Amino acid sequence: MSFDTKDYLDRRKEIVDRSLREYLPPHKAETKLHQSIVYSIHPGGKRLRPILCLAAAELICGSHKNVLPAACAIEMIHTYSIIHDDLPSMDDDDIRRGKSSNHRVFGEAVATLAGDALLTDAFSLITEKLLEEGMSSELILRVISIISEAAGSRGMVLGQAFDLEMDEGEHLLVNEISNTYLMKTAKMIEASVLSGAMLAGAGEGELSRLKSYSEKIGVAFQIKDDILDVTGNHDATQESKGKNGEKKHTYVSIMGVQASKAKVSELTNQAIGELEGFHKTPNPLREIAIWLSEREE
Amino acid sequence: MSFDTKDYLDRRKEIVDRSLREYLPPHKAETKLHQSIVYSIHPGGKRLRPILCLAAAELICGSHKNVLPAACAIEMIHTYSIIHDDLPSMDDDDIRRGKSSNHRVFGEAVATLAGDALLTDAFSLITEKLLEEGMSSELILRVISIISEAAGSRGMVLGQAFDLEMDEGEHLLVNEISNTYLMKTAKMIEASVLSGAMLAGAGEGELSRLKSYSEKIGVAFQIKDDILDVTGNHDATQESKGKNGEKKHTYVSIMGVQASKAKVSELTNQAIGELEGFHKTPNPLREIAIWLSEREE
Repeated sequence: MSFDTKDYLDRRKEIVDRSLREYLPPHKAETKLHQSIVYSIHPGGKRLRPILCLAAAELICGSHKNVLPAACAIEMIHTYSIIHDDLPSMDDDDIRRGKSSNHRVFGEAVATLAGDALLTDAFSLITEKLLEEGMSSELILRVISIISEAAGSRGMVLGQAFDLEMDEGEHLLVNEISNTYLMKTAKMIEASVLSGAMLAGAGEGELSRLKSYSEKIGVAFQIKDDILDVTGNHDATQESKGKNGEKKHTYVSIMGVQASKAKVSELTNQAIGELEGFHKTPNPLREIAIWLSEREE
Repeated sequence: MSFDTKDYLDRRKEIVDRSLREYLPPHKAETKLHQSIVYSIHPGGKRLRPILCLAAAELICGSHKNVLPAACAIEMIHTYSIIHDDLPSMDDDDIRRGKSSNHRVFGEAVATLAGDALLTDAFSLITEKLLEEGMSSELILRVISIISEAAGSRGMVLGQAFDLEMDEGEHLLVNEISNTYLMKTAKMIEASVLSGAMLAGAGEGELSRLKSYSEKIGVAFQIKDDILDVTGNHDATQESKGKNGEKKHTYVSIMGVQASKAKVSELTNQAIGELEGFHKTPNPLREIAIWLSEREE
């Protein structure tokens, strides 16, 4: 049976978009703060993280229907991180996903607050809506723990702090770059996959293999972004520019394009290897890993 | 029996400080991000919010020992809000609690991330440490829900957004000021009291009265701050300055000092009235309400 990954992703994106519109209704944004929130949430980007959350749930129990609040909360956290990352004091980006970045429209103060609100509201959403979905309190707490650990000072935020320091010129080891990518990008991808799987009833062994899968596709995803910045028709304004606009070290700037491509393939193959114990064909997580490694934007 | 409120607050502050040092150990801050976090957490300020959390627990069950993770998480959220509030794009304050504000020491980017991390890590702390304290998952989820609602886009962050718009010159109704204070300050004070009481086993009727108590002391607290900015030996750099340093509307600037003092007394008396059903003497929440209304700094 052939699997149309593009079609799969489009349909899941539609589901995520619909849920986000339900949880954060655009027409109800009355204050400037809420308009700023809604501006960055809709229409949003690829919705990769929530789709991974849905796909992991489908892999475990065949359905994603109870995990949508977690998936959307993760997208809210991703969106907050982008709003703050674009601020003048951080990466200073004027354009995001083809439109003006949040602070260019609403000002730095409101953009900062919109990010703060999205991060905070994500935890309200998980708590309240997962209870409504009939999830057990124990499981919801585990999901909150996983997501907050992945997003906090030992996860994504630490990765962002490392990233700020990767100015070109400084000597940097490739391990330091990989570790930054693990923190900055892979941790939240891991939280997406694990929370979906966990809410769908995955056992500890399954979670352990999915953790390993996620770390590998997370780092591969970030290296692939670096490659597309150099070679492709990528929206190249986001990833490679440092504070004050100077260039930053990336995996590609240190290892070169060929070695970087080889690394993406290697990580992707290792990630797929972690899925061997799951007897589901087609396996959406396998197909997404391949699609991510081959994408051209 | 006489109650030494100052001594009570000092002892509770010591307990909170000790717990915060345990949860966020200063000597383990290896990265710049963690140094920035630790810089704003220790020694901190009055610790009013966590003390209220402890006091509410004591009122309900005579002990505060299981609520410390919630109390400290609330202080972390308060600290994040201060770091972001001091940023140049927001209130642009160079001094906080007698020392340089976070971004003056660590730069805007790291300060922004330190705030983000404190907010996120607060939810990790509540989840993990309250479970260790033997609290039920249902109760922990209720606490997370209360705190995230109070801190998010319908609570503190909305209050901050309103606050940014309170530039002098614009016509403003006193109701709008009161509503801003309710959001910006009282919501998190309410979350502090309610989470302490809830974890100590308070019933719905008790929670409802404590909610009303908290709203009143929260608004009174902010008006008292305004009064001290004008009359007192207050660290006046924080509250009355708008973006770009221009003056902002406050309750006092609209109503005058005398009417503001009368409002603080009225709200404090109403708050104390809400405590009548609690048969504990001395009642620490009553004494704190009085102390807050009479403080001179």
